[in-house]
Amino acid sequence: MKVVRTVSALRREVARARSQGARIGLVPTMGALHEGHLGLIRRALRETDYVVVSIFVNPTQFGPDEDLDRYPRPFAADRRAARDAGAHLLFAPAVSEMYPEGSATYVDVAGPLTAGLCGRSRPGFLRAVATVVIKLFNQVQPDVAYFGQKDPQQAAVIKRMVRDLDLPVRMVVCPIVRERDGLASSSRNRYLSPEERQQATVLYQALQRAEERFASGAREAGGLKRSMRAVIRKAPDARIDYVEVVDAETLEPVKTIERPALVALAVFIGKTRLIDNTVLRPGRRR
Amino acid sequence: MKVVRTVSALRREVARARSQGARIGLVPTMGALHEGHLGLIRRALRETDYVVVSIFVNPTQFGPDEDLDRYPRPFAADRRAARDAGAHLLFAPAVSEMYPEGSATYVDVAGPLTAGLCGRSRPGFLRAVATVVIKLFNQVQPDVAYFGQKDPQQAAVIKRMVRDLDLPVRMVVCPIVRERDGLASSSRNRYLSPEERQQATVLYQALQRAEERFASGAREAGGLKRSMRAVIRKAPDARIDYVEVVDAETLEPVKTIERPALVALAVFIGKTRLIDNTVLRPGRRR
Repeated sequence: MKVVRTVSALRREVARARSQGARIGLVPTMGALHEGHLGLIRRALRETDYVVVSIFVNPTQFGPDEDLDRYPRPFAADRRAARDAGAHLLFAPAVSEMYPEGSATYVDVAGPLTAGLCGRSRPGFLRAVATVVIKLFNQVQPDVAYFGQKDPQQAAVIKRMVRDLDLPVRMVVCPIVRERDGLASSSRNRYLSPEERQQATVLYQALQRAEERFASGAREAGGLKRSMRAVIRKAPDARIDYVEVVDAETLEPVKTIERPALVALAVFIGKTRLIDNTVLRPGRRR
Repeated sequence: MKVVRTVSALRREVARARSQGARIGLVPTMGALHEGHLGLIRRALRETDYVVVSIFVNPTQFGPDEDLDRYPRPFAADRRAARDAGAHLLFAPAVSEMYPEGSATYVDVAGPLTAGLCGRSRPGFLRAVATVVIKLFNQVQPDVAYFGQKDPQQAAVIKRMVRDLDLPVRMVVCPIVRERDGLASSSRNRYLSPEERQQATVLYQALQRAEERFASGAREAGGLKRSMRAVIRKAPDARIDYVEVVDAETLEPVKTIERPALVALAVFIGKTRLIDNTVLRPGRRR
């Protein structure tokens, strides 16, 4: 696995692979690779011939009070993990390579897709994600790009951007990977103290509670949210950012579940903000 | 010359040309083709192997009080002109093909590049231009795209977008083409009555006045603007939108010309808004 730091070196390597007829897969990450990322890489390896993993902690998508400075950057371990998973190229640009002096362009997705959930809690986050992802798409020009369902709003926004701007890339969204006790794999899990790590399981427990109640026939979002909040409150260091039930496609809030609904949580455990979600599908087996 | 109406047919045709090793040129237009457009097509034919001309009157870039409805759409004549000029493919999508239900994504260039000139007079115009152009780039995936210096702010914004979003396209900006009496070629010249057409020459006369004064050593933007306004006011039906002297690269207003400066005008002649410009270069022959 080769490591490149510049867009021009990246383009050279990808062009070489493409000239040999390879289909290109891209797995964009912020590093601190976990099982979720490795699942994306493996899926990319099954479906394409040449897999590019990008590692870039994108500063523009962090708010002023967020964790940009302490975000984990275990580069040597990440390189090893990507190589062992089978990636062909690791692209790890500096901030100055991604945002040269004078950068002034951004991509925005307007409307209900970005109005709620993390779009409300983290102003500027989705714009920054859309902008860095379109840059990565244009730099790599992949045939297929792989994202995790862990951040469903991010995936929905990028899907919308791909469609609206006619980007010549196919998007694949892969299921959440969970640790043994159900906690969704996340780079930010590293922040948790052992005790917080234990409390963090309330996110998944809350989602399970919603799934159980839904399976028993509950369809009112209000009741589901109340029972999820009750589960989360059992953790003494938990602080709810949001607990929402929204249409799985438009991300608009729903009152009564009649079409597939996304149940999405953002919860602080101590100082660490975690997200998780599940989709409830009426008239289908879960 | 083939004519296609859909993105999928466009992609099929371009892919065929590319598979034969052709370099692709794109000339994006709103139709009502004039000598300026034909110059772009000819330049594209010299530099690339397969030239796509797009004709799309982009509704999003017209303000509510602007001329979207009466904008000329002489399709048969345009098709003939593009074919006679030597274009290989004409892409003429419907509005519903370019903006399907649910479109919500746009591209913005922030900062001084969009703060003044038409960016101030026509709110939303540059965002709409950037968005439709990135769509055309992604649909065609040209090697080179051709724009006119007639709209220098549009060209600057697209150049900035190409750089900032790492679009894999080279941009060529071609000089203004003028009619015999100096009036810049424009689709909107068709709106002018014979008398207005006569008065419209004041735009170029004003620019010439600035060039003359500059050649004689004048460097203060204030004085140049005053003398240009005096020229324009000689036309009884002229109403100035703006007369500006800005840095040719950053488009920020300048007081004293020490680096290449763009002199840019927007003037209504009756109801028709016309723009024109010239670049003044200190220390060089014009």
